[in-house]
Amino acid sequence: MAELPFPELDAHSDRAVFRQIADHIRDAIERGTLHEGDKVPSEAQLMQHYGVARMTIRNALQVLQSEGLTVAEHGRGVFVRSRPPVRRLASDRFARRHRERGKAAFIAETEGAGGKPSVDSIKVSEQAASPDVAERLGLADGSFVIARSRRYLINGQPVETAVSYLPAEIAKGTQIEQPDSGPGGIYARLEELGYRLDRFVEEIRSRMPLREEIRALKLAPGVPVFHLVRTAYATDGRAVEVCDTVMSSDAYVLSYELPAR
Amino acid sequence: MAELPFPELDAHSDRAVFRQIADHIRDAIERGTLHEGDKVPSEAQLMQHYGVARMTIRNALQVLQSEGLTVAEHGRGVFVRSRPPVRRLASDRFARRHRERGKAAFIAETEGAGGKPSVDSIKVSEQAASPDVAERLGLADGSFVIARSRRYLINGQPVETAVSYLPAEIAKGTQIEQPDSGPGGIYARLEELGYRLDRFVEEIRSRMPLREEIRALKLAPGVPVFHLVRTAYATDGRAVEVCDTVMSSDAYVLSYELPAR
Repeated sequence: MAELPFPELDAHSDRAVFRQIADHIRDAIERGTLHEGDKVPSEAQLMQHYGVARMTIRNALQVLQSEGLTVAEHGRGVFVRSRPPVRRLASDRFARRHRERGKAAFIAETEGAGGKPSVDSIKVSEQAASPDVAERLGLADGSFVIARSRRYLINGQPVETAVSYLPAEIAKGTQIEQPDSGPGGIYARLEELGYRLDRFVEEIRSRMPLREEIRALKLAPGVPVFHLVRTAYATDGRAVEVCDTVMSSDAYVLSYELPAR
Repeated sequence: MAELPFPELDAHSDRAVFRQIADHIRDAIERGTLHEGDKVPSEAQLMQHYGVARMTIRNALQVLQSEGLTVAEHGRGVFVRSRPPVRRLASDRFARRHRERGKAAFIAETEGAGGKPSVDSIKVSEQAASPDVAERLGLADGSFVIARSRRYLINGQPVETAVSYLPAEIAKGTQIEQPDSGPGGIYARLEELGYRLDRFVEEIRSRMPLREEIRALKLAPGVPVFHLVRTAYATDGRAVEVCDTVMSSDAYVLSYELPAR
């Protein structure tokens, strides 16, 4: 059997044996000795190399999987995780020229990058605003909002879930309440209703996903999410929409421009 | 002993017992039955409640810790992880008015939020640019850059590491090469040298940290990082600095403004 590219265990270390083994494999990934998509040596190979029990090897591999460095493929073994192609969000993504071409930002951007966009799980309801949403929209406690939730996919792979909240007094009875919000999406509808958009503010956090997010986005273990909350402001300063999104960190690079002035 | 707020195990489930137990505790955290800072029931309590071996409980607790939901405090038990106060980065953080007051962005923002900023591990060297840095700076392969690396702390807690790369032909022999870059930081020095800054572009990724990043930022398990690369452009369009930063996702909310025009 070929020699594995890992050092020997340090019998004098305070560090548990399974952690030492995880360290060796992680080092190989970080140094590039093991590349994206490479097969990690099998449990049998690792057991023989280190002279330890199968459970110790399994614990070591579990550490790497929980860190998002590897992925187990049923019946095939463990592989260094490959990252999917990422969608780059540019800071002009909500420019009016895109809306005027009749495409919502997600559709326009994904097609522009050669991907096949789709949207599913669209649900629209009227509900009382949460305190956070009411505050962001400048509404009184208990005000009603129209909530539009949906999931975005690229080439059939889910990448983002989003819920938009709009004041019911603006959106109720309009096409914004329909599952198909029409050409250019809800921002185009808001402008037709007389709310000319001026700017968006995005707040970005990063964290590990909740279980329902892992399910909805089919996230591999160890993949964090961006939690991005965007508020849309009309030219009169009024907040007209809050969009609460959860995005796979695997699928996105966010890009912004900041003024130096 | 008080009843624990967890259901019984499902003996017919495909899901391993330690994962079922982790699910119960995670549910309690996500529902808010267990709050930030609350003590998770002890191993002994959980063993008795579920009637399982200590190792099974330890495996369940390990799952939650690797997800960043809990933190073990030596000798005290396991607690629902509290998030530290976050630093909110606003989209005007590189405005000239801050530089003119003689403070670098990090110092000005942290003091503004009532925190005590500090910077350590400052190292400056001249080196050949990596292909990525050379491309971002519009330099020929093999060009030399001045690299300034440092670590930022708030109230003594590390929150960010950063390495700035500037073309050697701009920065060599200037105060930018000194450990103390002077009032207003390197952006103020660049403007004094005649490179009037126009805009910054930031690219943001999120991922799990590498081991050296866990050490440098003292990250709890299960805490992802923001990997942010900023390029500074002068008014003539020339890229004059690339700053490669790694930020604890625990300590930051990023905020940006996007135009609707």
